[in-house]
Amino acid sequence: MAEGGGAVEEKITMMHGGGGVFMNMLIRGHILPRFDAGGPEPEIPAEHMPDSAVIDGIAFTTDSYTVKPLFFPGGDIGRLSISGTVNDLTVVGAEPLAVSCGLIVEEGLPIRTLDRILESMAEAASEAGVRIATGDLKVVEKGKLDELIINTSGIGVRSSLLDANLESAGRSLESRWLTPLNIKPGDKIIVSGTIGDHAVAVMTAREEMGIRARVESDAAPLNGLMREALKVGGVVAAKDPTRGGLAALLNEWAEVSGVGIMVDEERVPVSEQVRSACDILGIDPMDLANEGKLVLAVAPHMAEEVLQSLRNHPLGKRAEIIGEATKEYEGVVVRTGIGGLRYLPMPAGDPVPRIC
Amino acid sequence: MAEGGGAVEEKITMMHGGGGVFMNMLIRGHILPRFDAGGPEPEIPAEHMPDSAVIDGIAFTTDSYTVKPLFFPGGDIGRLSISGTVNDLTVVGAEPLAVSCGLIVEEGLPIRTLDRILESMAEAASEAGVRIATGDLKVVEKGKLDELIINTSGIGVRSSLLDANLESAGRSLESRWLTPLNIKPGDKIIVSGTIGDHAVAVMTAREEMGIRARVESDAAPLNGLMREALKVGGVVAAKDPTRGGLAALLNEWAEVSGVGIMVDEERVPVSEQVRSACDILGIDPMDLANEGKLVLAVAPHMAEEVLQSLRNHPLGKRAEIIGEATKEYEGVVVRTGIGGLRYLPMPAGDPVPRIC
Repeated sequence: MAEGGGAVEEKITMMHGGGGVFMNMLIRGHILPRFDAGGPEPEIPAEHMPDSAVIDGIAFTTDSYTVKPLFFPGGDIGRLSISGTVNDLTVVGAEPLAVSCGLIVEEGLPIRTLDRILESMAEAASEAGVRIATGDLKVVEKGKLDELIINTSGIGVRSSLLDANLESAGRSLESRWLTPLNIKPGDKIIVSGTIGDHAVAVMTAREEMGIRARVESDAAPLNGLMREALKVGGVVAAKDPTRGGLAALLNEWAEVSGVGIMVDEERVPVSEQVRSACDILGIDPMDLANEGKLVLAVAPHMAEEVLQSLRNHPLGKRAEIIGEATKEYEGVVVRTGIGGLRYLPMPAGDPVPRIC
Repeated sequence: MAEGGGAVEEKITMMHGGGGVFMNMLIRGHILPRFDAGGPEPEIPAEHMPDSAVIDGIAFTTDSYTVKPLFFPGGDIGRLSISGTVNDLTVVGAEPLAVSCGLIVEEGLPIRTLDRILESMAEAASEAGVRIATGDLKVVEKGKLDELIINTSGIGVRSSLLDANLESAGRSLESRWLTPLNIKPGDKIIVSGTIGDHAVAVMTAREEMGIRARVESDAAPLNGLMREALKVGGVVAAKDPTRGGLAALLNEWAEVSGVGIMVDEERVPVSEQVRSACDILGIDPMDLANEGKLVLAVAPHMAEEVLQSLRNHPLGKRAEIIGEATKEYEGVVVRTGIGGLRYLPMPAGDPVPRIC
């Protein structure tokens, strides 16, 4: 940007928070270059923007939750905040140890509302077997905040199942953590269930959206589900498709691994309710955020067994192998129902702002 | 609170965020009881609300920064956010390892403003020798947030100086971390420099306050200063007097330790500028927030030497022994300049909202 004169000043837009191209540009252009110094070297390169950093063997992550409204079918900001942070630790191959609770509250919020949300955080933490160990409370004047923001950060330690899991891949890997760097052509891509549920649930809770699907958010801590997959073995990369959905996740994997990804659209599980909501709104379910789904890249010979292990867990009943890594294409390619091929681009941002 | 009927609904007030009586009631009444379960037991009891939790040997803390305005004499929200979290790790006896950066940005914030703040975070992290290892970015619609909130969480490991330091106390201690549980009658209370600078600097930056003191915020990472004290030894408790100031800190220490604290008012370092700003506004400097000061409880035979070590460090030049723990009184008692005694109560909240 040119200084002074008649230059147009660049400003933050909603798209910068959308988990897609604009957010990545801001993070890669303005944030990471300034922070890349000092202290011990991270075990997963920061430029790949892993869901958790690993420093001296400790997995460490942070997420702020600005979801609107605070309550939606299947969950609330409390459940979301614990699940999201537990999942960020889970997907690098860590077992969550503790999370923090940073509450930023608008003056005037009923204490009863806060109580419900705290209760929900406690329940989700108990599901995940993780302690809410430290916290902070700030209050902002009425009109200067939209009810409540929660930041949860988390720490975790290397899962005791990870070494054996990686060994089962049967080949040498780039990283001893779960990262897309490990993906090679032939690896199968598995999603643990239907996509888009969280985004549609939040949209229905916003009265202005005009859709009334009966869909519940999938918000859930996934460390238990992940343990089942790791016990089987052969998992080389994992991630939960939050902002920007499966489209952002797969594009990130293709970019980091340098390997193309082919997805069979008909095999991607989408509930009928989500499908019709997407049709009405003209949105691709691949772009929608999830808060209780795992995407795994698995060595081909282990994929069927990992799939079965997911399906045997209550949170993975509708798991599917949806595609594979391939050297035939660059980026992400979708085979459509009628047999055609289309590129699936990195979304500019999430179609639904403040989804998490 | 009675349910339904004509009951008055309890709501969050600005005082709940003020670091005093109201905040403690909310945390002890609504938050801690719900979170006290699951995962490994913390090494410092949660009910004492330590600045950092210690879980499986890892110190872990979180703080959100809502300071207004974003820039003030001597610092900005970026410097503050790194310093505050580094200091929370430091005061339990940990050496900071990494911090996170959770940015919550209002739509429309100039990217140039964000750049200045990120630069400032990087500088403070470099001063502290700590890596900004992980982050998150959320954007909220214009009018739904006041420019920018930053959450920084931090992880640390036990300082290599801590064991020898505790041994130098020359007595058995309740905790192997720095906590007020360790305080015994006779321990000297040391403050590392002038108090109230941060609060007055922020107040002068708010045009509506009508005071024009030339005071700079003390916001600084204190792990280097703390190292000097720990090298000497005999430090049994430490804390930085943020929201609620020295008054809240000392009352918390008296409550947790069950030992009274006597402070000699004339020995508490206060700059002339802060003193006169306080006179104009009718505020006690003891209630004002600091972001670059340490308060230490030190075994009596080590206190003079610790004092000298602080004074030899650029951040501790105006350190003073301001009082001592005593069994003669309960709570916190101040000996005034004219020789009288007054109780110093736990403040209801910070006199300056959104100070950090």
